[in-house]
Amino acid sequence: MTTSWLPVPDGTDFPVQNLPYGVFSRRGELPRIGVAIGEYVLDLAGLAAAGLVQDRRWFAAGSLNAFMVAGRPAWQATRSRLVELLTEERHREEVEPHLVPQAEAELHLPVEVSDYVDFYSSLEHASNLGRILRPDAEPLLPNWRHLPVAYHGRAGTVVVSGTQIARPYGQRRAPDAQTPTFGPSTRLDIEAEVGFVVGVPSSLGSRIGTGSFREHVFGFVLVNDWSARDIQAWEYQPLGPFLGKSFATSISPWVVPVDALEAARVQPPAQDPEPLPYLQVAEAWGLDLTLEVELNGHVVARPPFAGMYWTPPQQLAHATVNGAAVRAGDLFASGTVSGPNPEQYGSLIELTWNGERPLILPNGSARTFLEDGDVVTLRASAPQAEDVRIGFGEVTGTIVPARPG
Amino acid sequence: MTTSWLPVPDGTDFPVQNLPYGVFSRRGELPRIGVAIGEYVLDLAGLAAAGLVQDRRWFAAGSLNAFMVAGRPAWQATRSRLVELLTEERHREEVEPHLVPQAEAELHLPVEVSDYVDFYSSLEHASNLGRILRPDAEPLLPNWRHLPVAYHGRAGTVVVSGTQIARPYGQRRAPDAQTPTFGPSTRLDIEAEVGFVVGVPSSLGSRIGTGSFREHVFGFVLVNDWSARDIQAWEYQPLGPFLGKSFATSISPWVVPVDALEAARVQPPAQDPEPLPYLQVAEAWGLDLTLEVELNGHVVARPPFAGMYWTPPQQLAHATVNGAAVRAGDLFASGTVSGPNPEQYGSLIELTWNGERPLILPNGSARTFLEDGDVVTLRASAPQAEDVRIGFGEVTGTIVPARPG
Repeated sequence: MTTSWLPVPDGTDFPVQNLPYGVFSRRGELPRIGVAIGEYVLDLAGLAAAGLVQDRRWFAAGSLNAFMVAGRPAWQATRSRLVELLTEERHREEVEPHLVPQAEAELHLPVEVSDYVDFYSSLEHASNLGRILRPDAEPLLPNWRHLPVAYHGRAGTVVVSGTQIARPYGQRRAPDAQTPTFGPSTRLDIEAEVGFVVGVPSSLGSRIGTGSFREHVFGFVLVNDWSARDIQAWEYQPLGPFLGKSFATSISPWVVPVDALEAARVQPPAQDPEPLPYLQVAEAWGLDLTLEVELNGHVVARPPFAGMYWTPPQQLAHATVNGAAVRAGDLFASGTVSGPNPEQYGSLIELTWNGERPLILPNGSARTFLEDGDVVTLRASAPQAEDVRIGFGEVTGTIVPARPG
Repeated sequence: MTTSWLPVPDGTDFPVQNLPYGVFSRRGELPRIGVAIGEYVLDLAGLAAAGLVQDRRWFAAGSLNAFMVAGRPAWQATRSRLVELLTEERHREEVEPHLVPQAEAELHLPVEVSDYVDFYSSLEHASNLGRILRPDAEPLLPNWRHLPVAYHGRAGTVVVSGTQIARPYGQRRAPDAQTPTFGPSTRLDIEAEVGFVVGVPSSLGSRIGTGSFREHVFGFVLVNDWSARDIQAWEYQPLGPFLGKSFATSISPWVVPVDALEAARVQPPAQDPEPLPYLQVAEAWGLDLTLEVELNGHVVARPPFAGMYWTPPQQLAHATVNGAAVRAGDLFASGTVSGPNPEQYGSLIELTWNGERPLILPNGSARTFLEDGDVVTLRASAPQAEDVRIGFGEVTGTIVPARPG
C-alpha cells in the first residue's frame, strides 16, 4: 500500500489515497488552494511558487474553478505529482515547509457555485416522502422510475461547512386553516446528500453521455440541503420548492477527486424498468459511501449511498439531454440519501415520521425537527483496501434563532 | 422635453430619456459597455478612456456586473452625466467619436447571470394554465393569492437575443400511455416576460423590504422563457419544471435602468386578500409596459404588464424574506405576462388553448406550438410624456431542428 512519509492518524479521512482539494487561509492570509493530508493542509499555492507543482494561476486562487476548468489531464498530472511529493522521502525536505496544520487553517467555500441542481434519487427517500405526504396514494409518482427527478436550487446560498444557519422566516399554513401565518419555520430539517462538481464546461445544444462523466466532473462533496418543511409544503405547488430550500445549503470544504473514489465504485441497484438508452451506463457507478448524521454529538442515522437508484453519470446525462450547457462550478446533489431501514434515513421528516415519533437523544431530550442551538454534522467515507478509508471530512452547521427583518 | 443633439428616429425605443445599458463589440474588438441612443451605441469604455465618464474599470468590461455592484449613487451619477453629454451641444464634438452605429455592433449577454428565479405573477396566466391543465379543479391553487409563486431556473442557459434555439430532446408521455417516449419536443412554446436584474448584493440572513427595491435593482430586461410543454408535463411532479425550461432563456441585450421607468409606474391591480405586511408596498409599482409577441413577422399578442398581480418589489421581498442572499447579476423574471383578453396572452399554450384552436398566420399557415424555422420576437415599451416611449429593443430567437446527441 502507498504510504506517505508524513505520518497520518489511523482511520484518517485524508490518507494519501484521497488528497481532496479545498480553499484555506491562515489568519490574515489570502485564501488559496490546498490539499488535505492527515492532519495537515498541503499548500498548493506555496508548492507552485516553489516550482514543485504546475500551475500557480490555478492554485493561488480563491476558488477551485480555474483548476477545475483545466480538465482531466491537468487533474491527473497534479494528483500523480502530489502522490510523488508525499510518498518519496527525497521530496520531504522541500515539501514540509508547505504543510499547514488543519487546526490553524480556516476553510472556505471550495468552489464558486455556478448552477445548483438537486436530485431526488433515493428510492427509499422518495417512497418515504410519498407515504408521509400522500398517505392514500401510490408513494412513487409515475415519472420517478423513468427519469432522475430534479429541480434547480439557489447557487448563491451554498455555504461552506461551519456557517451558522439562521432559522428562516416564511409563510406556512396549518392543515385546518384557510389562510397562512408568517413566522420562523417550526419544521426545520436536514437532508444528507452527496454532490458532484463540474469542472469542464459543455456548450449549449450538446449532451454529456453517461460515458463522458469523468471528462467533465472534478469531484464529490458532502451536502446538507437544509429544508423548512412547513414553508415548502405551503409554497411548492405547482412549481416546486423555493424559499423552503433557498436560505442555505451547506457543503464540505473538501472536494474528493473522482479518481480517489475509483475503488468505491460498486454495482448500483437493478433498475426496473430498463432506462431509456441515454440513461444506460456501461460501468458500475454506485458508490459505496456510508454517511453519518450526527445531531448534538449523537449519531442518529447512517445512510448508505451505494443503494441510490439513480447514479451520478445518469444524473448528468439527464440534466444535459435537452442541450443544457454546464459550467465549471455547477453543483449536482443527489437528493436525500436514505436506506431501507429507519436508522438509515437521511432526514428528520423520515427519522421522526413527520414528527409522529420523536427521536430521543442520550441526554433525554426529544427532537422532531431542529431547535435553536442544535448542531448537525454529516460525515461520509468509503472503505478502501487495507484499512484505508477515503473520507469527506464533515459538513457541520449550528441552528441560530431567526433574524427578524 | 429633453432632447439630444443627436437626431433620433421618431418613435425610437432609445430616446435620451431611456439610455439602457448593454455589452457590445465591433468585429475583432473586445466586448465593452455601451448605452443605446437612437440608432447608435454610445461607447462608455471609450468615453471613460477619454476621461468623459467615471469609471474605466466598470465600462471596459465584458459584463455589466462590476458597474452594477457600484450601487445606486454610481448609477445615478453616470446617468446624469450621460444626459449632460448627449443634450448639451458643447459636448457634441468630444462625444461623437464614441458613437457606434447599432448596425455595426454585435450585442452580447449584458450581465453574468448569477441566480435565475422565475415567478408566476400574472393572475390571468396562472388562471389560464389552471383551466387548461386541471379543468375539473379551481384554476388558482390556494397559495397563489398569498405569495408570489416562483422557482429557480438555470442561470447558465440564459442567452442573449438572437441566439438560435435548438429544439430540445426529452422524455414525454402521451395521455393514454403507460411509459414515456424520447425525442424532440413537439410542444415548444414561448413565455413573454419582463425581468429585473440585481446590482447591489445582500448578505445571508438579511431581507430586502419592498421599500429598498431601488437600492438593489439595477434595471429591467425583456425575457422569453422558452418552454417545452410536453417535457415539462411529464417531469414536473413533485419538484417543478427542470428540463422543460433549462435548455434556453433569452433576454434582451439592453437593460433599462429603473430610473428610466419612473414615469411608467402605475397603480397595480388591487390585491385580495390583503397581503402579509412584508409584501405590502408603499409606492405604486405596477409598470405600464405593453409587450408585443411576434411570430414569423406577425404580431399575435400584446400582453399588458401593468395588470400583473404581484409587482417587482413584492417579488424581491418575498425571495429574500427567508434570509436568502442576492448577488449582482441575479435575474428575477415575472412569469408569463397575460391580460384578460385572448389577444393579450403571452404564451402559445394560452393563445391556442392547449393546441385546440390553432393560430392562423396571414400566409395561411397554422400554428399550435413552434415549428423549426419559426422566428419569435418580443418587444416592450412604456409610454412617456410628449410622444416619447421607453423601449426594450427586442428579444428574438429562431427555432432550429433538434440536435441528435
